[in-house]
Amino acid sequence: MSDNKDFVKEITNIEENFPQWYTDIVIKAELADYTATKGFIAIRPYGYAIWENIQKYADEKFKQTGVKNLSMPVLIPESLLNKEKDHVEGFAPEVAWVTEAGGEKLEERLCIRPTSETIFCSMFSKWLNSWRDLPMVTNQWCSVLRWEKETRPFLRSREFLWQEGHTIHETEKEARERTLQMLDIYAQVIEDLLAIPVLKGRKTEKEKFSGAEETYTVESLMHDGRALQAGTSHYFGQNFTKPFEIKFQNREGKEEYAYQTSWGLSTRLIGAVIMAHGDNRGLKLPPKVAPVQAVIVPIAMHKEGVVEKTTQLYNRLNKKFRMELDARENYTPGYKFNYWEMKGVPLRIEIGPRDIENGEAILVRRDTAEKITVKLEEIETKMEELFEAIQKNMYNECLEIRNRRTTIAHTLEEIKDNLDKNQGYVKTMWCGDVECENKVKEETGAHSRCIPFNQENLDDKCAICGKHAKHMIVWGRQY
Amino acid sequence: MSDNKDFVKEITNIEENFPQWYTDIVIKAELADYTATKGFIAIRPYGYAIWENIQKYADEKFKQTGVKNLSMPVLIPESLLNKEKDHVEGFAPEVAWVTEAGGEKLEERLCIRPTSETIFCSMFSKWLNSWRDLPMVTNQWCSVLRWEKETRPFLRSREFLWQEGHTIHETEKEARERTLQMLDIYAQVIEDLLAIPVLKGRKTEKEKFSGAEETYTVESLMHDGRALQAGTSHYFGQNFTKPFEIKFQNREGKEEYAYQTSWGLSTRLIGAVIMAHGDNRGLKLPPKVAPVQAVIVPIAMHKEGVVEKTTQLYNRLNKKFRMELDARENYTPGYKFNYWEMKGVPLRIEIGPRDIENGEAILVRRDTAEKITVKLEEIETKMEELFEAIQKNMYNECLEIRNRRTTIAHTLEEIKDNLDKNQGYVKTMWCGDVECENKVKEETGAHSRCIPFNQENLDDKCAICGKHAKHMIVWGRQY
Repeated sequence: MSDNKDFVKEITNIEENFPQWYTDIVIKAELADYTATKGFIAIRPYGYAIWENIQKYADEKFKQTGVKNLSMPVLIPESLLNKEKDHVEGFAPEVAWVTEAGGEKLEERLCIRPTSETIFCSMFSKWLNSWRDLPMVTNQWCSVLRWEKETRPFLRSREFLWQEGHTIHETEKEARERTLQMLDIYAQVIEDLLAIPVLKGRKTEKEKFSGAEETYTVESLMHDGRALQAGTSHYFGQNFTKPFEIKFQNREGKEEYAYQTSWGLSTRLIGAVIMAHGDNRGLKLPPKVAPVQAVIVPIAMHKEGVVEKTTQLYNRLNKKFRMELDARENYTPGYKFNYWEMKGVPLRIEIGPRDIENGEAILVRRDTAEKITVKLEEIETKMEELFEAIQKNMYNECLEIRNRRTTIAHTLEEIKDNLDKNQGYVKTMWCGDVECENKVKEETGAHSRCIPFNQENLDDKCAICGKHAKHMIVWGRQY
Repeated sequence: MSDNKDFVKEITNIEENFPQWYTDIVIKAELADYTATKGFIAIRPYGYAIWENIQKYADEKFKQTGVKNLSMPVLIPESLLNKEKDHVEGFAPEVAWVTEAGGEKLEERLCIRPTSETIFCSMFSKWLNSWRDLPMVTNQWCSVLRWEKETRPFLRSREFLWQEGHTIHETEKEARERTLQMLDIYAQVIEDLLAIPVLKGRKTEKEKFSGAEETYTVESLMHDGRALQAGTSHYFGQNFTKPFEIKFQNREGKEEYAYQTSWGLSTRLIGAVIMAHGDNRGLKLPPKVAPVQAVIVPIAMHKEGVVEKTTQLYNRLNKKFRMELDARENYTPGYKFNYWEMKGVPLRIEIGPRDIENGEAILVRRDTAEKITVKLEEIETKMEELFEAIQKNMYNECLEIRNRRTTIAHTLEEIKDNLDKNQGYVKTMWCGDVECENKVKEETGAHSRCIPFNQENLDDKCAICGKHAKHMIVWGRQY
């Protein structure tokens, strides 16, 4: 791009066409691109750097709780995938099969992992002997494939990057605790790092993971009011350990099956960051996860000392923050302002000849457009303060949207009305029957998000059938 | 394992059967294991932690030179793989093909990447417009598949983890410099981090990468005198950029094809660490890459205060080093000594009631078995000194083996004799003809390792055909 176009004009209006706005951001901000492999994306350096920051944050938290990383094969024999009935039914229709390799037709098809419960199980059964070997708390960072019919970058791609944690335990209690412990870490990743508030709860039978006893979820709400499942943690009980014979000698010397969990979060989170925070100027990144936290744009670069001084400042600040210096020639400052706003950089630092004279710089916030003049000797402190303020403000803005978009309904009609008007989360009471859940889906297009941990008593009756209510549940149309 | 066996007895003698010794170490030290997917291994947490340390070290060095990570699709359409003739001839016979996905037969086969030049090229051609976009210096950490007939954990597996860097440049000069710059970083990874000396040089035409103009290599020598190619860096010229139309407008406004490089190192390096350093007591890890740098073994654990005191010491040292405390009951100290020696931990810390009384501990080096008594208040400093000494000593031991196993030959017969007696590297002069190279391979089983950067003039004549010699070359039997 060598001309001075206004980037904003290249981006579809967020209120007019949210899906197109999303795609524009993904492509123009160089987060990802379509590839020659249909349904597969390339995650470009700027998008991948967001993922690296998520990885670093999450991996450190995982390891603090004793998680150990490892690497399992990308291919799983068909016979292994078939071992757990619900699991294979859930995943077999959307896997990719290797049928030829090394110039020969294979005797048995191998699938590219859609998730790795089965291969982890086959290894756990090999590695487990005694209760002394437990718990095994393992994780891998890798990519998985699910052959989606309709794809959208980051949100629904035939390949996505994720981490999948798989653990086995001596007791049900310990496994259940681990399931919720990892859900808590996911909540931290999303709330603390990505500045997106989450709704925590349990998935219904209909929505849970194929093969799980319970699936727990952290749900997030996007700018347009649609919901996004941001991370899930599953308790399997002995559903897999029995068919896979993951047995151990317990403390009493008796043979017992282990209790199991798995949990994952993926590059969908990049989609969540885009859709939760972005606006008509482009991407808007929380400072904690931004690949570039601040960009220096020199003003009147041709004037003596400007390039030199801004380079010095860049070198100084780069020791402490993730910095960029935009000293490109042939581009106006105005072009650069738009460019870096579109890229979502939280803070811009403008510095020209007069600022240099005064020993000052101007800081401009991406989230509020506020301009702050600051003495150069105090700039690091001020930047730290601002990063904290931006991070907090972005979280609060999302929370406000969520609060505004959360409604209560007492009838099926109200659910539909609320969604049509407002999208968002609709809270109702629910009898617990899948028939009512299916009805909501058919009539409104919304899925149940979860049965929140924080239960409220809105009514005695199920909003759909009017029978006795068991839970408060949250509905929402989803990505 | 609940009994007090001597681990050493479970490991095949290194002098008697090196390949079996290697497999024993891989399995007993829990570095990797065989899986239900034939020819594929699981890298277990202890092995994977070595890889994580390699990744961290290399990734940091890469980024210092401007490398940006990204992620490309795991599947490549057949038509894309076919675009560069030499490349497809080199790789097509050993790829795995996906022919069915999402319940349907695919119209075009997709291969699982054996390496990603073609997919990078297709994206570079999309992303590149002007010289201002150059250089593009990208890398991905991922796994690749090559359908090997015979496999061996880490050394030759159907799937392996690696990084593959792919770059495009404005000029041949810049691309050539990048090729050698990355080779230098590889040399640092292997020499500084893994304590293995490398031989640097250029691969012959016969041994170079399919599609490259030049392949450069860092070669290493294992304990048994066999060579291992530890990392390679390729200069492609315009071999790919022409068929893939990776064009840009140069500074003169004319259209030009970019110049390209790629470079990779893989989990083979874990195999190199095992085979370069291990001994009859098991694995031996350099402190810089060891997942556990020191293990505390409490003596007389039942005595009052021992567990408490060693736990305190563990917490204190764990802030600074990667530590383990082996407070397992039902195992004798002797068992634990053997166990952690087999695991290759560089330093053992023994501490019992009398040591506690005296405010001392005993440090035992894995590399020399030397015992050092040290005051507890000085233990961090002493450990740092010892880690440095161990790292250096391990490097020097490898260097000594290499020197001892490097010979000069002036005839084909001498090459064969030297290899039969000594294995190792055999240096000769060479005319440059592939016929002579083939002859060495047929008669001795050795491949050319490289044409070293450090050339010596051993003779005027090619050791094989007697014609005028062009280069000094190094031969060796390989893994």
